[in-house]
Amino acid sequence: MTDHIIDPSIIEAENADRVDDLHADYESLGERLDRRGIDIDSIKAKVAEFNVAVPSWGVGTGGTRFARFPGLGEPRDIFDKIEDCAVIAQLTQATSTVSLHIPWDKADPNRLKQAASRFSLGFDAMNSNTFSDARGQLQSYKFGSLSSTDAGTRNQAIEHNLECIEIGKTIGSKALTVWIGDGSNFPGQTNFATQFEHYLDSMKAVYAELPDDWRIYTEHKMYEPAFYSTVVQDWGTNYIIAKELGEKAFCLVDLGHHAPNVNIEMIVSRLAQFGKLGGFHFNDSKYGDDDLDAGAIDPYRLFLVFNELVDAEARYKDFHPAHMLDQSHNVTDPIESLMLSASDVQRAYAQALLVDRKGLKDAQQSNDALAATQALRLAYRTDVEPILAMARLEKGGAIDLLGTYRAAGYRAKVAEIRPAVEGGSGGIV
Amino acid sequence: MTDHIIDPSIIEAENADRVDDLHADYESLGERLDRRGIDIDSIKAKVAEFNVAVPSWGVGTGGTRFARFPGLGEPRDIFDKIEDCAVIAQLTQATSTVSLHIPWDKADPNRLKQAASRFSLGFDAMNSNTFSDARGQLQSYKFGSLSSTDAGTRNQAIEHNLECIEIGKTIGSKALTVWIGDGSNFPGQTNFATQFEHYLDSMKAVYAELPDDWRIYTEHKMYEPAFYSTVVQDWGTNYIIAKELGEKAFCLVDLGHHAPNVNIEMIVSRLAQFGKLGGFHFNDSKYGDDDLDAGAIDPYRLFLVFNELVDAEARYKDFHPAHMLDQSHNVTDPIESLMLSASDVQRAYAQALLVDRKGLKDAQQSNDALAATQALRLAYRTDVEPILAMARLEKGGAIDLLGTYRAAGYRAKVAEIRPAVEGGSGGIV
Amino acid sequence: MTDHIIDPSIIEAENADRVDDLHADYESLGERLDRRGIDIDSIKAKVAEFNVAVPSWGVGTGGTRFARFPGLGEPRDIFDKIEDCAVIAQLTQATSTVSLHIPWDKADPNRLKQAASRFSLGFDAMNSNTFSDARGQLQSYKFGSLSSTDAGTRNQAIEHNLECIEIGKTIGSKALTVWIGDGSNFPGQTNFATQFEHYLDSMKAVYAELPDDWRIYTEHKMYEPAFYSTVVQDWGTNYIIAKELGEKAFCLVDLGHHAPNVNIEMIVSRLAQFGKLGGFHFNDSKYGDDDLDAGAIDPYRLFLVFNELVDAEARYKDFHPAHMLDQSHNVTDPIESLMLSASDVQRAYAQALLVDRKGLKDAQQSNDALAATQALRLAYRTDVEPILAMARLEKGGAIDLLGTYRAAGYRAKVAEIRPAVEGGSGGIV
Amino acid sequence: MTDHIIDPSIIEAENADRVDDLHADYESLGERLDRRGIDIDSIKAKVAEFNVAVPSWGVGTGGTRFARFPGLGEPRDIFDKIEDCAVIAQLTQATSTVSLHIPWDKADPNRLKQAASRFSLGFDAMNSNTFSDARGQLQSYKFGSLSSTDAGTRNQAIEHNLECIEIGKTIGSKALTVWIGDGSNFPGQTNFATQFEHYLDSMKAVYAELPDDWRIYTEHKMYEPAFYSTVVQDWGTNYIIAKELGEKAFCLVDLGHHAPNVNIEMIVSRLAQFGKLGGFHFNDSKYGDDDLDAGAIDPYRLFLVFNELVDAEARYKDFHPAHMLDQSHNVTDPIESLMLSASDVQRAYAQALLVDRKGLKDAQQSNDALAATQALRLAYRTDVEPILAMARLEKGGAIDLLGTYRAAGYRAKVAEIRPAVEGGSGGIV
Repeated sequence: MTDHIIDPSIIEAENADRVDDLHADYESLGERLDRRGIDIDSIKAKVAEFNVAVPSWGVGTGGTRFARFPGLGEPRDIFDKIEDCAVIAQLTQATSTVSLHIPWDKADPNRLKQAASRFSLGFDAMNSNTFSDARGQLQSYKFGSLSSTDAGTRNQAIEHNLECIEIGKTIGSKALTVWIGDGSNFPGQTNFATQFEHYLDSMKAVYAELPDDWRIYTEHKMYEPAFYSTVVQDWGTNYIIAKELGEKAFCLVDLGHHAPNVNIEMIVSRLAQFGKLGGFHFNDSKYGDDDLDAGAIDPYRLFLVFNELVDAEARYKDFHPAHMLDQSHNVTDPIESLMLSASDVQRAYAQALLVDRKGLKDAQQSNDALAATQALRLAYRTDVEPILAMARLEKGGAIDLLGTYRAAGYRAKVAEIRPAVEGGSGGIV
Repeated sequence: MTDHIIDPSIIEAENADRVDDLHADYESLGERLDRRGIDIDSIKAKVAEFNVAVPSWGVGTGGTRFARFPGLGEPRDIFDKIEDCAVIAQLTQATSTVSLHIPWDKADPNRLKQAASRFSLGFDAMNSNTFSDARGQLQSYKFGSLSSTDAGTRNQAIEHNLECIEIGKTIGSKALTVWIGDGSNFPGQTNFATQFEHYLDSMKAVYAELPDDWRIYTEHKMYEPAFYSTVVQDWGTNYIIAKELGEKAFCLVDLGHHAPNVNIEMIVSRLAQFGKLGGFHFNDSKYGDDDLDAGAIDPYRLFLVFNELVDAEARYKDFHPAHMLDQSHNVTDPIESLMLSASDVQRAYAQALLVDRKGLKDAQQSNDALAATQALRLAYRTDVEPILAMARLEKGGAIDLLGTYRAAGYRAKVAEIRPAVEGGSGGIV
Repeated sequence: MTDHIIDPSIIEAENADRVDDLHADYESLGERLDRRGIDIDSIKAKVAEFNVAVPSWGVGTGGTRFARFPGLGEPRDIFDKIEDCAVIAQLTQATSTVSLHIPWDKADPNRLKQAASRFSLGFDAMNSNTFSDARGQLQSYKFGSLSSTDAGTRNQAIEHNLECIEIGKTIGSKALTVWIGDGSNFPGQTNFATQFEHYLDSMKAVYAELPDDWRIYTEHKMYEPAFYSTVVQDWGTNYIIAKELGEKAFCLVDLGHHAPNVNIEMIVSRLAQFGKLGGFHFNDSKYGDDDLDAGAIDPYRLFLVFNELVDAEARYKDFHPAHMLDQSHNVTDPIESLMLSASDVQRAYAQALLVDRKGLKDAQQSNDALAATQALRLAYRTDVEPILAMARLEKGGAIDLLGTYRAAGYRAKVAEIRPAVEGGSGGIV
Repeated sequence: MTDHIIDPSIIEAENADRVDDLHADYESLGERLDRRGIDIDSIKAKVAEFNVAVPSWGVGTGGTRFARFPGLGEPRDIFDKIEDCAVIAQLTQATSTVSLHIPWDKADPNRLKQAASRFSLGFDAMNSNTFSDARGQLQSYKFGSLSSTDAGTRNQAIEHNLECIEIGKTIGSKALTVWIGDGSNFPGQTNFATQFEHYLDSMKAVYAELPDDWRIYTEHKMYEPAFYSTVVQDWGTNYIIAKELGEKAFCLVDLGHHAPNVNIEMIVSRLAQFGKLGGFHFNDSKYGDDDLDAGAIDPYRLFLVFNELVDAEARYKDFHPAHMLDQSHNVTDPIESLMLSASDVQRAYAQALLVDRKGLKDAQQSNDALAATQALRLAYRTDVEPILAMARLEKGGAIDLLGTYRAAGYRAKVAEIRPAVEGGSGGIV
């Protein structure tokens, strides 16, 4: 039996105020979709099955190199974080898994498993960290980790990844995500070819220990923390890595990790076509890796990504990319942001399901560019909120995520228990 | 025996005015390099061997969709163009080959060969054109060529490429460069996966007819003429193409075809490392595919590219990427721009040869980022003009490219023969 | 009485098929908006008043420097163009004005006026052209026009602008839009300060002749056709121009003329705040000045621009920026693109009208970032199509723009009368 | 008398090894410049007068939101920092001032003055900090400072700036630099117009207290730490601020604070032309505000900026923009980076002094784009190191900055005294 952090009676009361309107809206939307030959209930069913993982580090307040401004009631450890994740899962009914970060979330694996099980939460991909130095660490990653010029440093980074796999095995994870900050800040600082050779050799050592039913995800990023070059800088390099490693290796796409103006949905299509799309870190951005809430800046782009996923689902067998949020919440309550982001990712999926695939294909085949793009626009501008809300309602979640969460007063309650955190940084400019 | 367009006596007279200073400068530079353990003559010897191809279309005045402002004495046909290229080759002694564009340069292959031989010019890669409709063409490429949804259109584009190979065989070319404008202007206009399948199938048909001693170069470009998606949009897709086609297929890097901020020298390194760097279209740009003169905007970037090439030369066997200029000259005399661009490409090569490779490697190995980047900077800020000029002088070229060309009065002479061209465009906005 | 190009009975018949569904949808949307305290009819009334000008050049098929692929039945002259614009106005009921381009649209002003009046069309801003050379023009604009180093060239450009004003006076225009391509392709080619002085002096000469009830709009653009620097490169320079010229001078914002990642809605806010927002050239873009259909790439950005306009409307008196489409239609029927773009601009306006301004302000005041952004998102994700369609229906337009236009067979009809145009370009690379 | 941190005898010994070569190189360069009509000694004299301020925070090791990897012997407080700055000044003889950051450098002003005087150092602009919360601060700047919706917060930020002025008065500073992080992370989070009104009102309050012989510099930045909008986002807004405040208000240009592809030298020209160029924060960047060493990524851009400054110097009276380095040293010894950056800024200045201004102007006037850009290129590719080194030598600095610094063993010495700092961050992602 699942423990509930938010008293279900609060959710029920909040839902009760909204349920009649929801039924009216759902019915009215159903009629409009019916005219387009779409059965609203089957869309709802697919939406209800949709899951996106919540990153443990996402429930803390983020910051920049200039400052971090703490929020109220910040989680003190991974167990507090799991409780925050449980709130998100309870209200959204769309985030049944948590993704851990080692060493930040290091704890007795059995205790971790127990803590999550209490809320019926599972564990998504394990995330290793060789982009910062853990206390007491022998070798520093200042000049690189898996791609370091120093064999001892590389070995330490390999061992750390193997440890993440070990922890993951105990708690039921089935994947390892590897993102490194390795690169360089100056032309000439590193030799690109040597550095990449080191990286590949290290990753092969990690891959060799990957259980058969696991996947390894490598994540590319154009820049930051390295500001001249980055070892895994784009999907081209990422694709090469996945090919070199083997069939359990896949590419992870973080929406904020690309050069300006890049067509991300096309990268998604290419990786899917060549069997190497591992999954996503969802978020949104305007400038760099801004890590804003998914859909907050360019919701149409998010839809276009899901348009590719729905297309790929029908096109390729055994296609099941991982979905994870990866955001930094500097000015909002992280739980609120994560709930609404999970919902916005679901929204994009729901809208993509509404695309008239047959009409789209015909328009494409006859070079009717306008009709083709209108097929996407028609689906996109459909307000699918009633579908999302109904899916939540039927699973015990909240019709109104924000209203219900605020009504429950969760943040104020934990702020009483969890001590205020000192402000931050100043100096890392 | 080579015919000379510019009377050699003019070159000699111009050189005579400058030769004493050149000898003094060469000697003085030689001493400074000697202190760094570098033998100036061996650098000069390498520079003298360097060749970069001139594109036939580069000697005409370029333009934009808004207007084209003609220049004086523009070449009327490929034979005029070959003469212009001969001037560039005579003065720079660094551009002994011409790259043709079909159908723009279509003519009796034997006449082409003869015209070029007269000036001891050879032919570099053939360039096919399926990004515009040739007069009388059956199918339009408005909605794509090699990747079109229409089989007839694809076949026409394949046939055109095969024709380019045929012409090339006669005139002694050994490579085919394929750049297409295929893509889309609207989300949904094309299906990315289907379109790429069509492209790959078409290219396989072309590849099947490629002679054994030829190479095929595919060129990626982020955007333009397509403004939402482009089939070969980046090096990632380009690499996949080269892998799918086979061992005679290589990727061509045009310096202006990337997303803002992208680290191009790193792409060069990756392609070299995985055996797929075919060569370059050199030019420079500030915004998009501006096609400005090589080194005009960011000369250090050009140097960093050559730094990779010199590194790769020592690292990989059988490494010989093709060098070609690809520029659009809207406000300069194209011959002047091409001469100086050839020289600036050579300059970057010469500077890269000056890098203390041993010192650089040591600095990299010991994570001495500052010393490493200074090794590059020291080489880069060396004024190698005396080396370039001496290499030219010894081969019969001009010490002062611009001064000698202007003194020869070539442009004025051809302007008398070649009729003025009507201004242009207006309306293609 | 207004002449109709499309037989009204066709529109009626098409509308008849859709009117019942529209009423149902409008009613249902009205109920949902009513719950949010919004009266749908008052929104509809505002939407019905909204007008966006159509550019005469927009009804022709556009192209790039690589090629232009003609469409069927392209307009032969300005009178054909006016007919095409009349079709757009008839079906959308949102584009009652046409914006002319001189010299492309040069004709007897009285004939122009008559031709437009026949369809109850008016004339929006006049557009001068000094970015290309007109046939027979004395001085070339190859190296600049209003900012040329040559006084004769500057004067010619000034005279051309004065001529545009003269024509405009006759046909009832009230504004002159000045966009120039002046700039440079190479560092050093021009002196920035001198060039800008020339520009300002020239503009002051034009401004001196501007009628009292006219406005002059200057348009900034980052690059293209100049590829190193552009005289009016951004809103900062544009603002200085408007300040230097005087109170009839305003800045025009083209959504595609900015650097990557720039926050355009913020520029809109700044210009409005300092009394210098003249108006818009609406279009959309992914890379540069792609001139794609408004809302085709990033519809949320278009909404955010209108969110500023609705805010400014309430904040500043005498605020009435000009709305104009400025697009290039390379792969679609230009009439279809312009109709849907006019509708998408209207859509963004309608959505912006739905924002809960009071709630937004409260959230902003209390730093409730999430509630604030949700206020925008809620308005944006409302499908306002029933409002737009109802506004059209009530004014005699088409419920379904694309369906009705295609049913009317206009393109096929004009294709019979207007001869096919030869394909284009090839060579301006 | 000036105290010396590095024993002058070490410098002398190091110089002794290099002085003969330097004299030879200086003489040889002098001859080559003489041919171009340039007197090397007068260039050296100008270079010797050149000064660039060092930021106190620059001598500490920087970091990113992901991690900070400490260096050896990091300064513990402002007095250690002043000693590090004294080393830079001693060896480069080009950095006689230090720029302080309050509250990071807060200390008894008289002690500060004394500490600096000991090394003959002066104080450049004061830098206020309202982008992070100081310990014990009443109001948080989480949602803004000078532009906050809360009057108390704005007042606190105003008071902080006034305090900076007070400290500055005591220590002999003559300027206040104001950079804030205020902005928003989400569309709608703030009202752009209201926020900017608040900002202007606050700045007017600060400006009112600015001493008559002071300047106030405002600094624009596109993004970071705010990721959707920033109050002072570009030079357009910055220019408006300077105009609104008054004649003691000027714009500060940080080379890394612009949108991708922006032509920064043109902004420099515009601000100079309209009397509002206050000065610079020099650094270099490839992606965003990377804060890399000046000239490390695009040295030609740095030269082009100085080309504008030399042009402006001759054009406008009373033109004396402030020069300051502002960099973040994550992987290098900060002293080494700052020394070489100061030298690279000087280098760009020296190269700009070599431009043939008369020839450039003639080429510009006659639209000889190629000759114009070659005038810049010729100056730029001159290796002016002998001029810089000779200027240093004659003032008691080091011919070889890096070699001498390393020979002196300064870092090892302070590492013995200054305790190692704990690694950092982890979690602010």
